[in-house]
Amino acid sequence: MAASMIGRARSSSTRERYRLSRLLVLAERLIVEIEEQPDVARRVLASREPDLARAAVLSRSLVYLAARGSSDNAATYGKYLFETRGHVAALAAPSLFTLYQATPDLSAAAVIGISQSGASPDVAAVVRSARRGGAPTVAITNVRRSPLARAARYVVGLDAGPERSVAATKTFTATCVALARIAGAPADDAPGAIEAALATRREAERLARQVRDPLAVVGRGYGYPIALEVALKIKELAGVWAEPHSAADFAHGPIALARRGACVLILGVRGPTIRSLRALARDLRRRGARVLALTDDEALADAAHDAVLVATAAEHVAALSLVVPGQFLARALTLRRGRDPDRPAGLTKVTRTR
Amino acid sequence: MAASMIGRARSSSTRERYRLSRLLVLAERLIVEIEEQPDVARRVLASREPDLARAAVLSRSLVYLAARGSSDNAATYGKYLFETRGHVAALAAPSLFTLYQATPDLSAAAVIGISQSGASPDVAAVVRSARRGGAPTVAITNVRRSPLARAARYVVGLDAGPERSVAATKTFTATCVALARIAGAPADDAPGAIEAALATRREAERLARQVRDPLAVVGRGYGYPIALEVALKIKELAGVWAEPHSAADFAHGPIALARRGACVLILGVRGPTIRSLRALARDLRRRGARVLALTDDEALADAAHDAVLVATAAEHVAALSLVVPGQFLARALTLRRGRDPDRPAGLTKVTRTR
Repeated sequence: MAASMIGRARSSSTRERYRLSRLLVLAERLIVEIEEQPDVARRVLASREPDLARAAVLSRSLVYLAARGSSDNAATYGKYLFETRGHVAALAAPSLFTLYQATPDLSAAAVIGISQSGASPDVAAVVRSARRGGAPTVAITNVRRSPLARAARYVVGLDAGPERSVAATKTFTATCVALARIAGAPADDAPGAIEAALATRREAERLARQVRDPLAVVGRGYGYPIALEVALKIKELAGVWAEPHSAADFAHGPIALARRGACVLILGVRGPTIRSLRALARDLRRRGARVLALTDDEALADAAHDAVLVATAAEHVAALSLVVPGQFLARALTLRRGRDPDRPAGLTKVTRTR
Repeated sequence: MAASMIGRARSSSTRERYRLSRLLVLAERLIVEIEEQPDVARRVLASREPDLARAAVLSRSLVYLAARGSSDNAATYGKYLFETRGHVAALAAPSLFTLYQATPDLSAAAVIGISQSGASPDVAAVVRSARRGGAPTVAITNVRRSPLARAARYVVGLDAGPERSVAATKTFTATCVALARIAGAPADDAPGAIEAALATRREAERLARQVRDPLAVVGRGYGYPIALEVALKIKELAGVWAEPHSAADFAHGPIALARRGACVLILGVRGPTIRSLRALARDLRRRGARVLALTDDEALADAAHDAVLVATAAEHVAALSLVVPGQFLARALTLRRGRDPDRPAGLTKVTRTR
């Protein structure tokens, strides 16, 4: 049915609202930026900057990662990449540097600061302190002329273009791909996996209709940092109380929350953790919880009440691709609650914590 | 009024219920174990074992901490102690060792495994792997003849006596005191601060009447690991959806949850973080949230709708003492929901994650 016919059948103010809502979708940056992710990931793959950073970082046994918010979730993904490759990875508590004037001995470490805007004063402070101490320093940022980029010896630019939506999407996946390249983990399949996951939008919208507030978001292994990120998107965009958990911890304590009707979203990919996640899904159903899943594993999907399936791939790549249905899910919940996906209530884009 | 008079005035079944409820309180282990905390902390202070461990740990620039659940919250408290004293501290993701067979290079690290029971296979696996690699290893545990104690070179026994309640209380505070002693942080005041905090029970019970589900539990600096622990107690004991947040992260994203009527519990102690926490409390009230606080700071207490005040002390000691009103709060919420404080639904005492 053509828009003009709908228009004729409705009152003028209804028609006006319809036109406005079409304009809002056309103007919505979030969906555009979600769909830009495969191209942005390809640019990070093609860049030579991660190669230069890799040589410097892998020369040290300790990798120290400083970040906030979504970038901190990417740093947690990086922790798994580096530790499975023989390095110790530590996440900085940036306030130790800015509020406590702590100066941990980073002379044996390589330090990676991550910030989309590059404007987080505390992340730049960690990098500056480490560089003074003689450590190789890397900035992963979308803004080359930022305080963070200036503080670091090596810059890995995300070249994601301006991210106008308040919620980080394309810079999150780009950062994860950059970290995979710095760690020497294969990432050639990442853009394709992310692109294939763009086809899950309708399924994620269906899943959104099953979500209850509050929601537990559970992952393990490489799925854990992606669970952190999906929970954060759902919280900041939709205002739904979505709490992330490591599946290992969830089973001993927070599972007390899984009373009848509680809603749990499991992120699981094939690999060493998948058996425990299938068992968790079955256990949660027995306890009466509503179990949803984002996964590449049909057995986990079958164990859940409802699931979004993505194509399988190397574990760290498949896990990363789960963020795409997670972003769609967060967006669908946002629209269902009548919120603006680009400007969540009460948030600002740039984190300026000291 | 004497119990016998109450008895005469009531029916036999009411009298029976009254006697049973008295017996249940007498038999309740949780309250006994909460009140044992000052004595247990004194035993850790008097022990020479932390001194032996300290020399080994502080010889290394990197401290690697492996733990789960409440012990992991204590490890986060340890991260602040070590990093403000010039060491880098990293928290292990134990599944990397057990599921991914990762072998991060720990030869430059000292490794501390923490487990009340000493029976967590994954925590012992981290310690065993590190010891094979030549790192000094320490077990902090309540059970000297446990797999974790056998795996480590140095054992710091908590000597807390059996912890029969499923929720860890006295072993949490004892572990924090042990970590302070290993890090070389002054802890002589800790038993007194914990003892003084035992006087907050009635106030915590009053605060419990103001808590709504879900609840955000927010801390920063040394208050952050205590916020993690208080949120875990509230979740596992009372089944209230209590999500912990770093105040720094909360202000940029999850604050979207602080819509009108949302309930936020702030843990704050005097020190470098207190100004930002007072400002957060005022901001949250402006947004319409219900703000509660556990604090030693009268200005933060004034900024909140209601608060429990503890005596002030050195920042890391005052922060630790906040766990006591937090434990009372969790217990009060548990009783209000008609649950058994000693046997939360669906939980087991010993964590056996692999």
